[in-house]
Amino acid sequence: MRFATIIENGHASVALIRDRRLLPLAIPDAGLDSVRSIAASGAEGLQRVREWVRRQPQGRYRSIDDLELGPAVPDPGAVYTIGLNYAAPGEADGARPQRPLVYAKHPTSVTGHDSVVTWDRSLTANVDAESELAVVIGEAALAVASEDAMEHVFGYTCLNDMSSRDPWLDGDQWLLGKSLAGFCPVGPWVVTRDEVAPEDLRLGCTVNGVTIQDDSTAHMRYSIADLISYISRHTVLRPGDLIATGTPARLAGPMGPERHLQPGDVVTVWVERIGELTTTIG
Amino acid sequence: MRFATIIENGHASVALIRDRRLLPLAIPDAGLDSVRSIAASGAEGLQRVREWVRRQPQGRYRSIDDLELGPAVPDPGAVYTIGLNYAAPGEADGARPQRPLVYAKHPTSVTGHDSVVTWDRSLTANVDAESELAVVIGEAALAVASEDAMEHVFGYTCLNDMSSRDPWLDGDQWLLGKSLAGFCPVGPWVVTRDEVAPEDLRLGCTVNGVTIQDDSTAHMRYSIADLISYISRHTVLRPGDLIATGTPARLAGPMGPERHLQPGDVVTVWVERIGELTTTIG
Repeated sequence: MRFATIIENGHASVALIRDRRLLPLAIPDAGLDSVRSIAASGAEGLQRVREWVRRQPQGRYRSIDDLELGPAVPDPGAVYTIGLNYAAPGEADGARPQRPLVYAKHPTSVTGHDSVVTWDRSLTANVDAESELAVVIGEAALAVASEDAMEHVFGYTCLNDMSSRDPWLDGDQWLLGKSLAGFCPVGPWVVTRDEVAPEDLRLGCTVNGVTIQDDSTAHMRYSIADLISYISRHTVLRPGDLIATGTPARLAGPMGPERHLQPGDVVTVWVERIGELTTTIG
Repeated sequence: MRFATIIENGHASVALIRDRRLLPLAIPDAGLDSVRSIAASGAEGLQRVREWVRRQPQGRYRSIDDLELGPAVPDPGAVYTIGLNYAAPGEADGARPQRPLVYAKHPTSVTGHDSVVTWDRSLTANVDAESELAVVIGEAALAVASEDAMEHVFGYTCLNDMSSRDPWLDGDQWLLGKSLAGFCPVGPWVVTRDEVAPEDLRLGCTVNGVTIQDDSTAHMRYSIADLISYISRHTVLRPGDLIATGTPARLAGPMGPERHLQPGDVVTVWVERIGELTTTIG
């Protein structure tokens, strides 16, 4: 199944996505009223959603173009991001960091598909987009082994890890330069884990149609299972928490590394079988 | 006023502290049922609490020793921590970092006064205590000027910024090594800002009665107002968010820098006019 957050009259709720159609969920008395609450509800909750959806007439579906999408997971408890997690072409296994490099984006930075993101340029003028496959945690995970870790995945979404390139912004800690409002587009929806195998998905990023990243999740240095296990040994992962699994190298080419995001740029982060997440720079 | 979180039968609620007595708050229909909700309620909410408290008979007060205290702010939306924020003795003003060094502890690391904190030593054996004055945010702050910043303070508490000294733990990002469960004792209570001027408070830390830190908030490189303003220009500060304002240097003396926390250690972090926060290492 695919779940999106929809915004109507300033109010966020959850909808099922099927092709280009959208079914707002209104499951009575079940507390299944957000992506996070569904992520927390386990197999039983998903079964309840499935049964409720089956009973809905076709007339209840709406066009996805009629509604504004919010962040796939609004106000997550945590957004963990992984640094240096894609191998360079031809790299030997030994080149990976001794442990995953884990840092945080502040949850208030999340925004949805088709957002316009702008910021105070006096804080930072040099900001890049980074395409990432994000894991949405389902059942809470504390000190889980790698071989059990995937049971704690609710689903997958696309995440644009917008990042300031000004290291002075926060003294080489990366928190603030990645946490400005809107610096974490997430969406357009969450695809549940039963629908997609994440081990070899193509993913990339375009700016104004020019490809700046194009790689495969097969080149992750630490697998999703290893990342969940590692983080869960240090801090509990809770339903709806996001793990952005790292970004591939930027391609040399028509848009070199010195070219940062400019007002008017249209950025699309995409992951095969998951979706395309578009952001306009304001 | 002083507010603490109390835990009864596994349920957290809020109480007023007066001397060594404690008054559980049960304000009907007001939503003032946690430290965070009171922090969010503004001057009007505090006035409501004050009036309700005035009407309570003395018999409703209990001894503070009868109840378990939880984290002064349970499950805060964010714990920002400031690095390198105390001047060395005799230091010139120019020695401070160009901007505040801001990083995060994960909110799931908070615990209360008199907790026993233990962890998997295979992750990190070298952990220190750090005494800090913590600010509890009241009204949300977004891009506020320093001169308006103190209006966004709800109150103050003590925070022990327990920190792994193993830099490899998270590749020089400090998140995980500061976010193990229990690594953020906060309390024993929050003192509202009308009760204390934070500009020159003595603060320190003892381990098994030996003083390892003893300094004054007068030596902060960035003031509380400047820290709130700076963070709020990057990301919104929300009611109940914590800012740990940095830790003073460790004293040379009977317990040198190579001596890290050991099982059985009793750590007390204290801030003048705020309180004493004790943690036992398990």
